[in-house]
Amino acid sequence: MSAGTHSFRTTRMGPAAMSTSDTTPTTPWIAIAEAARHVGAEVELRGWLAHRRSSGKVQFLVVRDGTGLMQCVAGRGDLAPEDWEALEALGQESALIVRGSLRADARAPGGVEMGLRAATVVARAEGFPITPKEHGTEFLMDHRHLWLRSPRQAALLRLRAEVIAAFRDHMNAEGFVLVDAPIFTPNACEGTTTLFEVAYFDERAFLSQSGQLYMEAAAMALGKVYCFGPAFRAEKSKTRRHLIEFWMMEPEWAFATLDDVIALEERLLVATVARVLDRCGEELKRVERDTTRLASVRAPFPRMRYDDAVELLNQQGTPFAWGGDFGAPDETALSERHDRPLFVTHYPVGVKAFYTEPDPEDPRVCLSCDCLAPEGYGEIIGGGQRMASLEALTQRIDEHGLPQQAFEWYKDLRRYGTVPHAGFGIGVERTLSWIAGLDHVRESIPFPRMLYRLRP
Amino acid sequence: MSAGTHSFRTTRMGPAAMSTSDTTPTTPWIAIAEAARHVGAEVELRGWLAHRRSSGKVQFLVVRDGTGLMQCVAGRGDLAPEDWEALEALGQESALIVRGSLRADARAPGGVEMGLRAATVVARAEGFPITPKEHGTEFLMDHRHLWLRSPRQAALLRLRAEVIAAFRDHMNAEGFVLVDAPIFTPNACEGTTTLFEVAYFDERAFLSQSGQLYMEAAAMALGKVYCFGPAFRAEKSKTRRHLIEFWMMEPEWAFATLDDVIALEERLLVATVARVLDRCGEELKRVERDTTRLASVRAPFPRMRYDDAVELLNQQGTPFAWGGDFGAPDETALSERHDRPLFVTHYPVGVKAFYTEPDPEDPRVCLSCDCLAPEGYGEIIGGGQRMASLEALTQRIDEHGLPQQAFEWYKDLRRYGTVPHAGFGIGVERTLSWIAGLDHVRESIPFPRMLYRLRP
Repeated sequence: MSAGTHSFRTTRMGPAAMSTSDTTPTTPWIAIAEAARHVGAEVELRGWLAHRRSSGKVQFLVVRDGTGLMQCVAGRGDLAPEDWEALEALGQESALIVRGSLRADARAPGGVEMGLRAATVVARAEGFPITPKEHGTEFLMDHRHLWLRSPRQAALLRLRAEVIAAFRDHMNAEGFVLVDAPIFTPNACEGTTTLFEVAYFDERAFLSQSGQLYMEAAAMALGKVYCFGPAFRAEKSKTRRHLIEFWMMEPEWAFATLDDVIALEERLLVATVARVLDRCGEELKRVERDTTRLASVRAPFPRMRYDDAVELLNQQGTPFAWGGDFGAPDETALSERHDRPLFVTHYPVGVKAFYTEPDPEDPRVCLSCDCLAPEGYGEIIGGGQRMASLEALTQRIDEHGLPQQAFEWYKDLRRYGTVPHAGFGIGVERTLSWIAGLDHVRESIPFPRMLYRLRP
Repeated sequence: MSAGTHSFRTTRMGPAAMSTSDTTPTTPWIAIAEAARHVGAEVELRGWLAHRRSSGKVQFLVVRDGTGLMQCVAGRGDLAPEDWEALEALGQESALIVRGSLRADARAPGGVEMGLRAATVVARAEGFPITPKEHGTEFLMDHRHLWLRSPRQAALLRLRAEVIAAFRDHMNAEGFVLVDAPIFTPNACEGTTTLFEVAYFDERAFLSQSGQLYMEAAAMALGKVYCFGPAFRAEKSKTRRHLIEFWMMEPEWAFATLDDVIALEERLLVATVARVLDRCGEELKRVERDTTRLASVRAPFPRMRYDDAVELLNQQGTPFAWGGDFGAPDETALSERHDRPLFVTHYPVGVKAFYTEPDPEDPRVCLSCDCLAPEGYGEIIGGGQRMASLEALTQRIDEHGLPQQAFEWYKDLRRYGTVPHAGFGIGVERTLSWIAGLDHVRESIPFPRMLYRLRP
């Protein structure tokens, strides 16, 4: 094709003109991420204008298509004067289709640049709100739908997708079967204060905070299961770690013990970090993550009993009374001493959920484990062994003042072939915040829902 | 090890006794699904008693562990009299650990059986509610947490997991990036009558029915995206096809046209059916699916314009006026003529959502497409090209009586670099219902939520 057949047009294209089944010319539409494989070829890119500069004689357009950035270069002599001017006036985030040949250039981002031969302006944009200058957080959050286009946010979205795929693939490879837990639940398991209530026809329902009880039922059917979905906490907390709506994976494993799930957590985290390091070098660089910190995430992870953690905190000058739950500063103090995640086990019975199995060797504590991420990121996993005995579970439900009737179905799991079993919940956003080195969890989810933040 | 070291014990084991790190003896705990690889070896299985029969001289226990069934055989002479009796009295769904050597036997389920050498009863069960006899639907639904253990339901859970993995893997392989859409949304996009409302601190929020608007924003950031999560419809419908809570995948693709997404849908469905046929032969057999019907699901799928579909219905003697939406009987009439999914395109503007792009060649209709599964299963996918023009979208929002203010963020996508784009939503439960050949959608999800059904 000649440049003349596709000179610059500044009219918006209708859908018909955009058809990919358009057969003349047959320049292939490629993704920028695969440009290195097409060096020397004439290709088409479709995307948006990220930056533009001009020397007066040469124009440099940086086009982004969602998979990467491509510098496109045109000399003044290559273009008709009106086309040169049209490009010069093009604002950030204008949509365009460009064609040209790809050539290796070590100075260009990605090592490849395009010698521009033709371009079509699909839509002009003026005054895109998010410019390279600094913006306040509230402004960026209000424009989250546009902020996602910035290189850092786009890299975080890709990192999130990779972490989730790593979680799923690891569980599938270990023979765990995905079983989706319901979101609408009739039970208010652990009190109603942090639950969202919904009118469900003539009844009331609550939005799930955990699929665990359902996973216990599924584990008795399939042996090894996990759920992966959104969970909801109506907490009036406004911290760097809290989201109202977050995603969680919850494996449950029949005949497994506390030690079995701790080993599984370790394998999962090692595999996830290794995969992100392997596949997301570009994204980690974009978010300026110190990857040497991630490279040290290898088995075995350190383990510490709650008793010893309390003693350590007190030795370090952080007064902490046995029996309480750790707060964020305590978790930070415990975990920042290590270069990899830390398992804290055997918490007091009183700080863990009613269904946690007590330690037969020390009934003050239970067979529980939290995993604290290094670098002060705090808890990313909570789990443990579940109570197997019907009698003990019934008594515990009473002690917690919960209605027996609501748990009859759950107690059925102990009536019919109860077995030791264990599981855990791992939070996507907290894990990603650690892996990506984020200051605040709000950047770890595409459209964060927080206290006073329901939009866009 | 000798059988004597693990003779039958009928006491419930405590968690400590169950530790897999118990090093003596070292008989490996394997999954029944991998038994064929261990023929000739001594192994341990952990599971539940599915059936038991005795000839008086020989006992046959069928053990299920969630991955398969194993017939375990013990002669009277092999066991102490009290142990023989303990096993004879063991009820369905009792939990047990068995050890013995595996041998090939063509008559056994799975082609392998175990010569029993030792067993431990972990928990006796009496009166398991779900027996091989017939039970009413309401009874089974009330016992869903136990019903999942039955072979048919367990097979459906596995089929569901495979369909979901096939969806995700296909989209990932095509370069689509998972972007989770929010569940809490401030907008009541298409009227509030079928929305669940939630008090969100000082505001009101609605539970998402679709992540599409958010995916359009994400597609402008990443090019190709999809979300995959639960969606909610407060519909007072009680049909074979309706769930209150269901799962949906929604891809969105920048610079793509209606034709592009139809081709993508075809690739996705062909790949999904092929994968299920390849990997889930056992499960399809268990649910008695006629797999010859699935084997014909190959490209190209037939396509039909709405206009022609209306004419066909009228020819077939089903009076249908142009401009209406198809009901379930109409979809059945259209799709049952084909052995593979049918694409119906170019619906009237009035029956599709406000954001659907009109056909520039015929503005009565829009660039929309529904995919109807064969064998009368009806719509499993809805999608199309989205309106790219700010002016047209603004007008359409007015025409639908929707508040402009609520859509300002969505309109920003047209203000800044608008491009043709298209996408679709595919329902997990309806797709699985078709692939598994289910009579009712309630068996396609682990814990169905329907009108008057919020438990267990």
